[in-house]
Amino acid sequence: MCQLLGMNCNVPTDICFSFTGFQARGGATDVHSDGWGIAFFEGKGTRLFLDPQPSCTSPVAELVRAYPIRSTNVIAHIRKATQGAIGLENTHPFMRELWGRYWIFAHNGNLIDFAPTLDGSFLPVGRTDSERAFCWLLQSLRQRFGHEAPAMPLLFEEIQRLTVRIAQHGEFNFLLSNGDCLFAHASTRLSYIVRQAPFSQAHLSDQDVTIDFDAVTTPNDRVAVIATQPLTDNEHWTTMAPGTLWWFEDGEAVRHSATLPGPEKKR
Amino acid sequence: MCQLLGMNCNVPTDICFSFTGFQARGGATDVHSDGWGIAFFEGKGTRLFLDPQPSCTSPVAELVRAYPIRSTNVIAHIRKATQGAIGLENTHPFMRELWGRYWIFAHNGNLIDFAPTLDGSFLPVGRTDSERAFCWLLQSLRQRFGHEAPAMPLLFEEIQRLTVRIAQHGEFNFLLSNGDCLFAHASTRLSYIVRQAPFSQAHLSDQDVTIDFDAVTTPNDRVAVIATQPLTDNEHWTTMAPGTLWWFEDGEAVRHSATLPGPEKKR
Repeated sequence: MCQLLGMNCNVPTDICFSFTGFQARGGATDVHSDGWGIAFFEGKGTRLFLDPQPSCTSPVAELVRAYPIRSTNVIAHIRKATQGAIGLENTHPFMRELWGRYWIFAHNGNLIDFAPTLDGSFLPVGRTDSERAFCWLLQSLRQRFGHEAPAMPLLFEEIQRLTVRIAQHGEFNFLLSNGDCLFAHASTRLSYIVRQAPFSQAHLSDQDVTIDFDAVTTPNDRVAVIATQPLTDNEHWTTMAPGTLWWFEDGEAVRHSATLPGPEKKR
Repeated sequence: MCQLLGMNCNVPTDICFSFTGFQARGGATDVHSDGWGIAFFEGKGTRLFLDPQPSCTSPVAELVRAYPIRSTNVIAHIRKATQGAIGLENTHPFMRELWGRYWIFAHNGNLIDFAPTLDGSFLPVGRTDSERAFCWLLQSLRQRFGHEAPAMPLLFEEIQRLTVRIAQHGEFNFLLSNGDCLFAHASTRLSYIVRQAPFSQAHLSDQDVTIDFDAVTTPNDRVAVIATQPLTDNEHWTTMAPGTLWWFEDGEAVRHSATLPGPEKKR
């Protein structure tokens, strides 16, 4: 199984601290050594770093850890291959363009017998179940809404509906972003934390590194971090209930779907 | 105006030597300091490094120069902004997926009043004439050939036909690759060299760096390098005639279009 890391903020923030702990899981403190990748949105633009090497020894990961790229939406992934060989074309996150925006997607899980009909508008380049699911999701969104993006609540509901269909095929934890917001689906295992004033110290679980967020933030900063497993051992992370889709924007959880039919949490 | 650099090889080759000279043009020996980018194909996968900083001071460029990524198709670009602000979303090369393959595109030039109708299948994220041309090119290829790639000679002819239409709007030097081959269009200024056995020494024009290719190659290696201006000062580069489209594959120029109607050069 793979590891996911996402960040959604109200102001551009660097992910160096979280990435330091996350990177260690790619072959050092954990077994996810079949490649890794990270995507940063800067406005509408994206930087996508992919490496089929283990992240703990990757020179590209070292650059990402040391070079503070400030971003409002980040998605990272460390791979333990289930479907698709080790190779660059099977390395997450994946990127496509829809409605004049880049979309970034990373998946943790395993989909069995997921072979939807693809009409050619978005086709996988590699051989993972994950990229296939991403292509079908974007194809379905374009089929439903045409060539212009719908309002956010409508988009959230449609992604939720499509996610339920895909998740019938197996574990489907994912992170998805278009640079404005970040969608996170907890199928089996995903947690998040929102950091905002008053900020305090955080200590990584995977390495003996502490940061004092109070010293590196302003009072208005708000940052949501989403990860397969909590990255720090002295903060309270919220476990996302299995079967829930979450919409993060400006560093907070705006809405999430109910696991069973019921009222939705409003902003 | 921008600077283009392309490489097409019959075996995966690192571009460190050529990139060393090219990188210097991004703000050090030349004025192209509005960002830079480079894309490497490894099989069907791509690594795309983009940075809105000048390449001569970019930590990402330093990584690319020092970390030998071996690739059969590479496209790099250093930007001097003409249309579109300095920003990540306007930084070349651009990437899209068509027919289950990534396509990478970079442009040097300036297109005036190029405002084609886009049907939504490929939309620009940024505001450059270049990305607009790329989207229209891919849209037109999909309209012409549907959802499966045609045979290469047919594809070459269609790209040539579309290029002529776009080039009516201004300077349109470009590099385009799907990982199998590399297309290069010379509108005003583009040169190439094919290096193959017997290999000799090459000396950069922009820095006092010499490489002995004989020591780092095998007798069967063949590498085509395409650049806005020759990168070395002791080798013979071929100037590509204005108005010609070239198809490079396995490190050689397979075919190019004639500037005026006439017989094509065969492999």
